[in-house]
Amino acid sequence: MTTELLKNFVAGQWQAGTGEGTLLTDPVTGEALVRVSSAGLDLHAAFAFAREQGGAALRAMTYGERAALLKAVAGVLTANRDAYFSIATANSGTVQTDSAVDIDGALYTLGQYARWGAALGEARVLLDGDAAALAKDNAFASQHLRVPTRGVALFINAFNFPSWGLWEKAAPALLAGVPVIVKPATATAWLTQRMVADVVAAGVLPAGAISIVCGSSAGLLDALQPFDVLSFTGSAETAAVIRSHPKVAAQSVRVNIEADSLNSAMLLPGAAAGSEPFELFVREVVREMTVKSGQKCTAIRRAFVPEALYDAAAQAIAARLAKVTVGNPRNEAVRMGALVNREQWQTVQDGIAALSTQTEVLFDGRQAPLIAADPAAAACVGPTLLGTRNPEAADKVHSLEVFGPCATLMPYRDTAQAAALIRRGEGSLVCSLYGDDPAPLAATATELADSHGRVHVVTPDVAKLHSGHGNVMPQSMHGGPGRAGGGEELGGLRALAFYQRRAAVQASPAVLAALGTIQAPY
Amino acid sequence: MTTELLKNFVAGQWQAGTGEGTLLTDPVTGEALVRVSSAGLDLHAAFAFAREQGGAALRAMTYGERAALLKAVAGVLTANRDAYFSIATANSGTVQTDSAVDIDGALYTLGQYARWGAALGEARVLLDGDAAALAKDNAFASQHLRVPTRGVALFINAFNFPSWGLWEKAAPALLAGVPVIVKPATATAWLTQRMVADVVAAGVLPAGAISIVCGSSAGLLDALQPFDVLSFTGSAETAAVIRSHPKVAAQSVRVNIEADSLNSAMLLPGAAAGSEPFELFVREVVREMTVKSGQKCTAIRRAFVPEALYDAAAQAIAARLAKVTVGNPRNEAVRMGALVNREQWQTVQDGIAALSTQTEVLFDGRQAPLIAADPAAAACVGPTLLGTRNPEAADKVHSLEVFGPCATLMPYRDTAQAAALIRRGEGSLVCSLYGDDPAPLAATATELADSHGRVHVVTPDVAKLHSGHGNVMPQSMHGGPGRAGGGEELGGLRALAFYQRRAAVQASPAVLAALGTIQAPY
Repeated sequence: MTTELLKNFVAGQWQAGTGEGTLLTDPVTGEALVRVSSAGLDLHAAFAFAREQGGAALRAMTYGERAALLKAVAGVLTANRDAYFSIATANSGTVQTDSAVDIDGALYTLGQYARWGAALGEARVLLDGDAAALAKDNAFASQHLRVPTRGVALFINAFNFPSWGLWEKAAPALLAGVPVIVKPATATAWLTQRMVADVVAAGVLPAGAISIVCGSSAGLLDALQPFDVLSFTGSAETAAVIRSHPKVAAQSVRVNIEADSLNSAMLLPGAAAGSEPFELFVREVVREMTVKSGQKCTAIRRAFVPEALYDAAAQAIAARLAKVTVGNPRNEAVRMGALVNREQWQTVQDGIAALSTQTEVLFDGRQAPLIAADPAAAACVGPTLLGTRNPEAADKVHSLEVFGPCATLMPYRDTAQAAALIRRGEGSLVCSLYGDDPAPLAATATELADSHGRVHVVTPDVAKLHSGHGNVMPQSMHGGPGRAGGGEELGGLRALAFYQRRAAVQASPAVLAALGTIQAPY
Repeated sequence: MTTELLKNFVAGQWQAGTGEGTLLTDPVTGEALVRVSSAGLDLHAAFAFAREQGGAALRAMTYGERAALLKAVAGVLTANRDAYFSIATANSGTVQTDSAVDIDGALYTLGQYARWGAALGEARVLLDGDAAALAKDNAFASQHLRVPTRGVALFINAFNFPSWGLWEKAAPALLAGVPVIVKPATATAWLTQRMVADVVAAGVLPAGAISIVCGSSAGLLDALQPFDVLSFTGSAETAAVIRSHPKVAAQSVRVNIEADSLNSAMLLPGAAAGSEPFELFVREVVREMTVKSGQKCTAIRRAFVPEALYDAAAQAIAARLAKVTVGNPRNEAVRMGALVNREQWQTVQDGIAALSTQTEVLFDGRQAPLIAADPAAAACVGPTLLGTRNPEAADKVHSLEVFGPCATLMPYRDTAQAAALIRRGEGSLVCSLYGDDPAPLAATATELADSHGRVHVVTPDVAKLHSGHGNVMPQSMHGGPGRAGGGEELGGLRALAFYQRRAAVQASPAVLAALGTIQAPY
């Protein structure tokens, strides 16, 4: 049986790409699923339609009206939720709880932005701060505004979050008043395409507000214009190509990038082996290594403990990893499913091998038998804990991101050395800290704030409450400097700034009073 | 007599570059002034010293203490103000009032940041917004912080503002806690170097807080590391080279760019010829064409009037331009001095010629005799007003920035057409509006906010108060989307954000309470 060729939705119409397209497969069984092709699309027409039709329709609405759009989108997706889990199982090879991180994470994020946007009510333009006097008695003053950019928001997304990756970007973009064009990663484009198809079929968004291109990204950047914005999630290599593209380099198209990240977890000094902070640390390292088979940009890659606890931590983590069953996500005994495909499987194997030249293997899940999956065909790999007693010398663990169920345990002498080692990641998305004394935890969090988008602090009093090292909450900024790409996403209504332009209006009080705007709530 | 070779101040020492260096000359007389060379400097050592010594010293201070540094710098510069005017006359060829825009503009900006910083007092870390709940009863919450980036701020600056260009960037950088390395444009590097020399000699800044490299920029970008930031003011061509440099493209060095801009002035419908808004418009167009010989990134390049007023506006502007005397700034009869050098003179001549292929010359100052200057040698050019009755077809006037005393007058049919024509600049630093009815002025300002960093509204009630279309006030954002480079500078304490990293700390109330920070005031 031939597989379906998924269509693209551009210029207000479903359009099939030309040619055979690229095949999407089941990473566990190898089964052919669907095909995608963006060949032959008129991208300039697609972008123009989104920019003109979608942009005008969205800008004509208030923030409250656009928030209602997000609520409607969340409603459509909720109604079709079961189908999304089926697609995730087939195309991402993830167990139910891992699929939920992607699917329910999107619904939660959409819901939050709908709520935050509703609070902005009738506003069309946001004030940015108070008026600043430019003459005596404020007779002439400067008032900053924020308005939507008059372009499209192009998303070039990663394979690991086909659902959340779209909606965590689309929610603030649409709320800001900017139409969206998404190019999902080919390997898992099916779920993204289905979700967009359901939203389009439901007719809850204005024409041009959302478009999807599946397959090759060729030509997408060429279609950008100066007021468009581009949000990219993926590798540092592709990020460099994007930043060097003429539309970005010479025409200042605004770009947000989330790239590689060697995230850390640090058990603070003072906790004994077996103490509650120690156990919280061990539990979180194991969870981050195994959720979505470690295919999260925010997953813990480097775990730091006081020197005296190195062996105890290694044993405790290994003991928990030994219980992680790996294989076909359709089998109820399986706790961890597959990587996205066999190419990633090979890349992860190579990455572990590369790190192993500077580390010892503390737990090797690569040898464990798979459940209901063929080890020669399935993209499954067991969790692997590496370790080194010499983290200063082991430079690869601070620079090579293995995008799978693998982390490296390292000892540190004192907090200063730990911070310096963590900073050798040259900018990360998140670092988590474990302890029970607020003062050193707060001090370490402040110390590491410069090189991380987020610092997650786990204390015994929040053991059951905390949101998890790797879970991206829409309330908090997602991004990080340097290697992590230098971007900023989410963080509540802060996310809107990427899709807005800020401008200062200098005028008399009478003109400023006529602007008719409301204060941005951050 | 041989000219002095100005030294560079790096790694805490005055260091001469090797070789003959590049000669700086008087743009009116051609006299040799001084030479500069950055050849042979150990830039990696220079950057490391600034990053480690300067950064650590600045971060150890409170905002209030750093604000006091700015006040001290302003004091040193004020004490040496006369020397700066002499250098500006000799090296920039500017009349006193034009030199003041650069020199006194810097002093004013430093003073403002000193004042705003003092209000932050004891703070070392700024809170960014309120805590957001991540669990019931705020038992786990997210609090965003802002901390200084742990790197250097490299400034690559333009020739037209050797004084203000340094200090409008250095004030927020130093206040934020980030050391500065400035590379002034070679043609006018003398004033920048002298100011830094005075500040260094006065010993008012910690070691490593400020460095200067004069001459070639070769190697500067290679010395950047992921937590450094780069602020560039100059051409779109160089901006593209910077964005494509591996440190920026692949290592996410944060970049702010201010590039080309086709700024507009628009007389709104409803004002008759000779009315007060009409006269305010005419006066401002003439002022912007002639201040600093039009060598301001913010100068008016495109002037729009209702169709019926095209001829009247042309005559009124031409009549005022005819009174502008041009020549040697040392002569008291001279109102407008020179361009920066003969190369720029040729570029401006070529630019006017290029625009003239699609416009008519409404006033030609190029033929007027110079005062006390040799027309074959001096970089002086009289103001030139171009015009076209067909602004839709004249594409060059919307894309070619002539960086001299030249602007193009254009008629518009209605406000919608005017906005569309203004937006054909593809992003500008500033647009000014002239009229006397607050409602349409506010509506037009909002309409144009997306494509401008600043909208300046001139009404009769602020005729004597307003700060001027082209004057960059530190209270307002300076920057613009697209062609203007996409950057944001100034805007009060908003400017600090470029030199800070934002991070979310997710923790228990006890840990968040221990962060010990104060709320950012915007």
